[in-house]
Amino acid sequence: MAVNLNPAAAEALAAVAGVDLWVAEAGIKKPGRKDLLVIRLDKGNTVAGVFTQNRFCAAPVQISKAHLEAGVQIRALVVNTGNANAGTGEAGRANALAVCRTLAEELGCAPEQVLPFSTGVILEPLPVDRITAALPGRRPASWLEAAEAIMTTDTAPKAGSRQLALQGQAVTITGIAKGAGMIHPNMATMLGFIATDAAVTRPVLNQLVREVADLSFNSITVDGDTSTNDSFMLISTGKSGAPLIDSPRHPDYAVLKAALVDLAIELAQAIVRDGEGATKFITVQVDGGRSVAECKDIAYAIARSPLVKTAFFASDPNLGRLLAAIGYAGVSDLDVDRLELYLDDVLVACNGGRNPAYREEDGQRVMQQPEIRVRVVLNRGAASATVWTCDFSYEYVRINADYRS
Amino acid sequence: MAVNLNPAAAEALAAVAGVDLWVAEAGIKKPGRKDLLVIRLDKGNTVAGVFTQNRFCAAPVQISKAHLEAGVQIRALVVNTGNANAGTGEAGRANALAVCRTLAEELGCAPEQVLPFSTGVILEPLPVDRITAALPGRRPASWLEAAEAIMTTDTAPKAGSRQLALQGQAVTITGIAKGAGMIHPNMATMLGFIATDAAVTRPVLNQLVREVADLSFNSITVDGDTSTNDSFMLISTGKSGAPLIDSPRHPDYAVLKAALVDLAIELAQAIVRDGEGATKFITVQVDGGRSVAECKDIAYAIARSPLVKTAFFASDPNLGRLLAAIGYAGVSDLDVDRLELYLDDVLVACNGGRNPAYREEDGQRVMQQPEIRVRVVLNRGAASATVWTCDFSYEYVRINADYRS
Repeated sequence: MAVNLNPAAAEALAAVAGVDLWVAEAGIKKPGRKDLLVIRLDKGNTVAGVFTQNRFCAAPVQISKAHLEAGVQIRALVVNTGNANAGTGEAGRANALAVCRTLAEELGCAPEQVLPFSTGVILEPLPVDRITAALPGRRPASWLEAAEAIMTTDTAPKAGSRQLALQGQAVTITGIAKGAGMIHPNMATMLGFIATDAAVTRPVLNQLVREVADLSFNSITVDGDTSTNDSFMLISTGKSGAPLIDSPRHPDYAVLKAALVDLAIELAQAIVRDGEGATKFITVQVDGGRSVAECKDIAYAIARSPLVKTAFFASDPNLGRLLAAIGYAGVSDLDVDRLELYLDDVLVACNGGRNPAYREEDGQRVMQQPEIRVRVVLNRGAASATVWTCDFSYEYVRINADYRS
Repeated sequence: MAVNLNPAAAEALAAVAGVDLWVAEAGIKKPGRKDLLVIRLDKGNTVAGVFTQNRFCAAPVQISKAHLEAGVQIRALVVNTGNANAGTGEAGRANALAVCRTLAEELGCAPEQVLPFSTGVILEPLPVDRITAALPGRRPASWLEAAEAIMTTDTAPKAGSRQLALQGQAVTITGIAKGAGMIHPNMATMLGFIATDAAVTRPVLNQLVREVADLSFNSITVDGDTSTNDSFMLISTGKSGAPLIDSPRHPDYAVLKAALVDLAIELAQAIVRDGEGATKFITVQVDGGRSVAECKDIAYAIARSPLVKTAFFASDPNLGRLLAAIGYAGVSDLDVDRLELYLDDVLVACNGGRNPAYREEDGQRVMQQPEIRVRVVLNRGAASATVWTCDFSYEYVRINADYRS
């Protein structure tokens, strides 16, 4: 049911110097499938991440945050699919640490130098013995295989690369992501890992990962549910030979950020395109607001509304549901008589009601497209925000009613 | 698909002295069905209401609020179904006023003494000529017929009565409600009208209507969408002969409030039981919080989550989704290791993870029931809140994808 989702192609994915990838089959949920990924990093790297805001954040999230905060040199990331190790209390933390310890022994580093990640069913104990038993049997893998190894309900692997030059030096960015449901910002059951051979100091990388996330992974929603496990990690290996970016005012910062945002948006949109049961890909753009925050509130109110999303599924230009969502977005001083609502290039509402020139067949034509842009112009400021989402279909209900069976 | 919804029975509905009901067929959406209700009030009444917080509030909501604020004696309420007169701008307000004017001429009062209400499709012009043409042909109706006349996607009329004594004087309360989708507090596409022959001053009735709404209509959700038209009106005719309640400290205040809350909860629950596509009725109770607000935030996070609601539809005790919803409810200092989660009497989670004594078959047994109580004990205070909701089924998608066709 994915919408214009182009599966990642192996030949389009460039290796990143300083990063080795391995996969293994641990039989966590299903026997014989790749469900374990190791991202090994050469020394001299920097790593930064953003994590779920969910209070029930999973054990691996707690451990990864602690290891990052310890300030040690990170040497590996280890990701399992099939089990989220979330809602597992003290035993869950011990299990996540046991995975770090086993991999650290294999690699000859300290457990604190390993970051663990998990995705899958929550509230089930992590089958830690199967994971630690499978780690020695890991084999070298491509980025495409890495993307495959972290899939859950995804219908296709999600990966991409960018090439750029920083002061004449060739730089590579390659990333992978997973996620198809429970998608909402801050963040979703999504994992994203982007590595570059550019050189960035840790404090600058900390700022960069937040700025990139806000414009990509924190601007999507499938069902409004925020997961316990979301993590987006940015890795800088420094192997390209490009100058060290040691400040957000460094001339290369904006160039690198633009390329990272471009790739992160592609990966974030791929998650929405693969949204559980999705038949439409919807861009919600809110312009002319007083602040980015109010634009994002309105965009998310539209993007989260089950009534709006079922209308998109039905290709029904039920524009009133769009107006209702704008109205309850929580912008308390919004003057609804001043805003304009567009479906692609069709002006459907203005002056507090339907555009007199609007014809149902124009709305119908846009609604039948697989890709639709909803645009709201608030006419009260210069701020904008864009959010990506998908429609709500029978298939969404089927997938989520059957997920564990 | 309604869950244990008992259709209102005519013989259980008591007349309220000082209230006359009329219905008519205006052919607003479908020919031949009752789609117009007039509630005529004797002089000496007081009326108070709460309305949607949606910024795109419908034209009749704007007019009703203005007429109530004018402080004049209200003589009638007029309700149409089939068209919400929302997102209709200046023309919508003129149309709502035209309906008031026509009815006022029929009744010999001023247009400001009439309150208009509408429910149905939004962003379509109100067929005002059909409504004004039908008003003279109105005929006396029972409370049951009144409940039928305001239905939209409801599968059954919703109405109830209570009898009580205030200082030895018999008092009657009878009310009707409609709504089956776009249900979320503050408020939903729900209309509720409750009349009593008790005597209550206008300021006290203003307070009473808010307190009753918070414990009933503002504690339900079907899909989290807040409509443009929600209104809950409380009418006091004063015809019972019971003493005038002129203060919240009056001894009869609490007695009358308890009976009103009891009826309003029955009507609010009937809306959830009739929730679009509902197969399960779910009570979410949060205890031991520091404030009612944080309890309600957590209850609503659970009750709104599409992942939780599809799991209920599947009778799947996917408890992790419940914990995830608690975690993202926005209570930022919540210590998840201290809370307890119950499905009916089954303790499923504590100490930050699954209860070691929990067995899947116990959760499964509860999940298969048509009525389920989710109880969260926060163990950090004495506040509580309860919210009612339903599950999320294929049928919900079908109803909302097909609504206009």
